[in-house]
Amino acid sequence: MLGRVAVVGTGLIGASAGLAARRAGAGRVSGWDPDGDVLRVAAERGAVEAAGTLAEAVAGADLVVVAAPVAELPATVRGVLDAASQGCAVTDVGSTKSAVCAAAGGDGRFIGGHPICGAETRGPERASAELFEGATWFLTPAAGTGPGLLRRVHGFVTALGARPVAIDPDAHDRLVALTSHLPHVLANVLLNQAGASRIDGHDPLQAAGGSLRDMTRVAGANPRIWVDIFLDNREALAAALGDQRRRLEQVEAALAAGDAGFLARWIAEAAGNRRRLLATAYDDPGALQRLRVHLPDRPGVLAGIFQALGAERINVEDFEMEHLSTDRGGTLTILVAGEREAGRAANLLEAQGYGVVVAPVIDE
Amino acid sequence: MLGRVAVVGTGLIGASAGLAARRAGAGRVSGWDPDGDVLRVAAERGAVEAAGTLAEAVAGADLVVVAAPVAELPATVRGVLDAASQGCAVTDVGSTKSAVCAAAGGDGRFIGGHPICGAETRGPERASAELFEGATWFLTPAAGTGPGLLRRVHGFVTALGARPVAIDPDAHDRLVALTSHLPHVLANVLLNQAGASRIDGHDPLQAAGGSLRDMTRVAGANPRIWVDIFLDNREALAAALGDQRRRLEQVEAALAAGDAGFLARWIAEAAGNRRRLLATAYDDPGALQRLRVHLPDRPGVLAGIFQALGAERINVEDFEMEHLSTDRGGTLTILVAGEREAGRAANLLEAQGYGVVVAPVIDE
Repeated sequence: MLGRVAVVGTGLIGASAGLAARRAGAGRVSGWDPDGDVLRVAAERGAVEAAGTLAEAVAGADLVVVAAPVAELPATVRGVLDAASQGCAVTDVGSTKSAVCAAAGGDGRFIGGHPICGAETRGPERASAELFEGATWFLTPAAGTGPGLLRRVHGFVTALGARPVAIDPDAHDRLVALTSHLPHVLANVLLNQAGASRIDGHDPLQAAGGSLRDMTRVAGANPRIWVDIFLDNREALAAALGDQRRRLEQVEAALAAGDAGFLARWIAEAAGNRRRLLATAYDDPGALQRLRVHLPDRPGVLAGIFQALGAERINVEDFEMEHLSTDRGGTLTILVAGEREAGRAANLLEAQGYGVVVAPVIDE
Repeated sequence: MLGRVAVVGTGLIGASAGLAARRAGAGRVSGWDPDGDVLRVAAERGAVEAAGTLAEAVAGADLVVVAAPVAELPATVRGVLDAASQGCAVTDVGSTKSAVCAAAGGDGRFIGGHPICGAETRGPERASAELFEGATWFLTPAAGTGPGLLRRVHGFVTALGARPVAIDPDAHDRLVALTSHLPHVLANVLLNQAGASRIDGHDPLQAAGGSLRDMTRVAGANPRIWVDIFLDNREALAAALGDQRRRLEQVEAALAAGDAGFLARWIAEAAGNRRRLLATAYDDPGALQRLRVHLPDRPGVLAGIFQALGAERINVEDFEMEHLSTDRGGTLTILVAGEREAGRAANLLEAQGYGVVVAPVIDE
């Protein structure tokens, strides 16, 4: 049903696409990578049949997936379009779309793609057919893309377990500038600001609470990937950064003026947006309750808690266990829906001797 | 050993301090709150013996804990110092320290305090003696504070399970501006920026990846608390925001100039800071490996995974389960120490049919 697939660039994403395509019943998956070792490992993992050249990999394919680093995408896609047949669909998996779509020069066979699977480019050793399960996968068809080719790529993405979302390439780049690239920049800036200061002999990083830790999880991410992404999307990212700076100036002005009304409205706006954000993941974000429990660093503690919750059929929506320090144990956070369920869970944990703090996730 | 304790303000934090003091063997814990219902519930929970007035609560106490909202702290602390005996230590639990210490006017009996326990002020219903376990608890003794009183407050904090850290009040406020108040502001700004835009019909909040979600967890936090905190610490916070803006301008300049070298150094600096941040919680952050697994939204799935990991004695450092959406299951993230342990865990999960993506937590 998927026909013949070729994968150009057989790192983690490319090899995973190969494995997923095979699982979904692709007739044949050939592959090529400029790095012979990467190609060999992908072939050994059963992700692709190794071809000797890019042209050989692409020959006879119904669909080519280009999984090259962002900086190399434009040239690689041009090369693939030159080598591919007239009826072949060509797509990619890059984090930005404007440059690569421009490089394709409006060729109707090219449909840009970007799976949001959180995986950074690395080797094919841990490639997985399940990598794309549940992921949003942006597609940017060209004006000249025929419905047949679009259907083919759409079907491919769906067969891999992802959810295709069509979007204009420039809109895509402005969207990810806001949802991914700006957060990465802010995480780096915030962590470097906190890490650069010593305050009266105290290291802010030693005193960091959960908010700083949550906000800097993506800081310091692989520079070999992110420098190219930031530069490739510099226009949209700069616009987002400028907007961010203007918003910070507004807050500074409100602080200087002691404008409690502005701050209250601004926080309320954020609470409303957080409700909308959580509504993508939960049926009723307003009902979510957060339970926090401090746990000693002792084996078996967690198993005991989850067994008890399971035995009482308390439905845990999400949870998180995070170390406070090497000698102070950690914090277990559990999300449940509804105050009644939260009360049951809290009573159960308190009966086990734990102190539980319950609070609504959205606290307006 | 703790002597007689009084708690003024018997909301979540005050009542928890009362419960913890009783557990730690305080001779008597009296309490008062301007809200009669709050005081009644705290007394019913066994956190305090309800006094009729502030003066009555404080009379004969060796230590008074003032747990009032930030905006009311200065006046309340002055009232407590007026009512307390000459040998009584007075401390508080407010999120900022300069204003309340200034209000105490250098009275050697006042030692400002701030437990970092992540709990926001709310009712005493869920007060817990374990709230402060493992928490950092800042203390800001005045110049005239005698060693006996400081030892008393230090011993109290330690008896509650927390770790006292002495700091100058102004330094404290600059420190929390950086580690807590700035992250809260950035979370609000980022979420309001993403929430305000529609890009070519797409809602950025619908397309949000993990980074935006992680970075906006504390957005929209209770305005009744946070407006006062922001305003009370406006000077240190404005300085931190100004520094943030200047750092954003640097990044914008580097993007405009296409300065890959700057961006690479800047990311590397963030990676180094992240290593330092994680070193507070883990013995060897560089060895940490992150496993990510996509899970269907099906009961029992998690129990099966944790049982299997436990049976193989794979030591899970931290973990997180997060919903992707109501119909697309979620992502389980597991942190383990060392590539060998990560390989064992990945093989185990793959044998159960899950796709696993493994990556180092610090990826330099």
